[in-house]
Amino acid sequence: MSNPTAAMLVIGDEILSGRTREANAYHLAGRLTQVGIDLREIRVVPDDHAVIVDAITALRGAHAHVFTSGGIGPTHDDITADAVADAFGVGIDVREDARAHLQAAVGAGRTLTDEHLRMARIPHGAALIVNRMSGAPGFSVGNVHVMAGVPEIFVAMLDELLPGLDSGKPVLSRELRFDVGEGRIAAPLRALADEFRTLSVGSYPFRDASGYGTNIVVRGTDIELIDLAIERLEAIRRSVV
Amino acid sequence: MSNPTAAMLVIGDEILSGRTREANAYHLAGRLTQVGIDLREIRVVPDDHAVIVDAITALRGAHAHVFTSGGIGPTHDDITADAVADAFGVGIDVREDARAHLQAAVGAGRTLTDEHLRMARIPHGAALIVNRMSGAPGFSVGNVHVMAGVPEIFVAMLDELLPGLDSGKPVLSRELRFDVGEGRIAAPLRALADEFRTLSVGSYPFRDASGYGTNIVVRGTDIELIDLAIERLEAIRRSVV
Repeated sequence: MSNPTAAMLVIGDEILSGRTREANAYHLAGRLTQVGIDLREIRVVPDDHAVIVDAITALRGAHAHVFTSGGIGPTHDDITADAVADAFGVGIDVREDARAHLQAAVGAGRTLTDEHLRMARIPHGAALIVNRMSGAPGFSVGNVHVMAGVPEIFVAMLDELLPGLDSGKPVLSRELRFDVGEGRIAAPLRALADEFRTLSVGSYPFRDASGYGTNIVVRGTDIELIDLAIERLEAIRRSVV
Repeated sequence: MSNPTAAMLVIGDEILSGRTREANAYHLAGRLTQVGIDLREIRVVPDDHAVIVDAITALRGAHAHVFTSGGIGPTHDDITADAVADAFGVGIDVREDARAHLQAAVGAGRTLTDEHLRMARIPHGAALIVNRMSGAPGFSVGNVHVMAGVPEIFVAMLDELLPGLDSGKPVLSRELRFDVGEGRIAAPLRALADEFRTLSVGSYPFRDASGYGTNIVVRGTDIELIDLAIERLEAIRRSVV
């Protein structure tokens, strides 16, 4: 597959301490698969300026897109915007259009506090990612797309962002369930994967009330080829059950 | 905090394609916090030999412990053991004690297949991580601990592994709920974080039926200091509500 590649960078001590279950990676992964962007890495790092800067620098050099979540609120532990600015070597300031979005969100009559204004600090040269859920915008600098950690806001920002990005062919998949452990089908599966080299053939064992089973997932961009591989798998299934 | 640091490496295309929601990181993070190991990074990578080798090499050099999940079953996409062997520059072969665990799991009378034996291939110099759930063992090579991706087996292997590892002081936490958005308390919170520099003070906004709110989490190894910070937060809460 020659779709553009991407990485996700999740920023937040709360994930690494086990307080919070990470909630945005699964959504992002599914959406990128739909639009034909190949997610190649997810990295979770703490609220540590130098660590975030290093991760952004590494990931943006290796991938067409980097999607971040977390650390863009008003408190002392929200340090993502400054880290992105440093990673690109650009300045960061309160920006008028971001301030206007926050003003609209709090209501025209209210004075914006320092905390509101902190959320209007945007690295120079960025494009805003506005959203229908909150006044505080995300932003893109180059190929780095900075979004909120709160799941509903992350979803809304991604909806806004995705249509404008370079993407490729949607990745399609079909799945077949085997009521045997994966050891029983490993040999024919390996032969199938060797034959259909442009497809990805994944084997996912499970155990439920009725015993061991295996789901086989075939992924690729050519649906006819996927269908052909599934036919072959159905024949394998008839031979083992 | 001077606890030993750790990274987690999750191996699996199914996470990156959005087929499967990653399920082991949250459990690992909570357990490491309890025993005093400081989880500093989680990285998810695809079933790609070179990428896995590079990730293991980078993470094992940077941290006291590396915990991996996924890719140790019998099928063609299970390539973790070979990648770990390559990362350490050691050989890998079927090992007698691993074979004996698999034989016990399938029953003394049955002949082990090539697929069973594939799960008994262990890098030279490794220590096995046996588990009560399945015959296929995990293993540790140096500071890299290789475990299964199936959640129940990951949990069982971690139970087996953790008591023998170097660890530090358990990290404790207390949490206080504010029924205001985090912007309203950002300034006193920053002052508190500046004063209690050996503690970690996290601010986690949420939105529920009654409106915006914020949970403040104080973490550290000294419970008296945490209690003092929480008293200070209760005073802040009285002042804003």
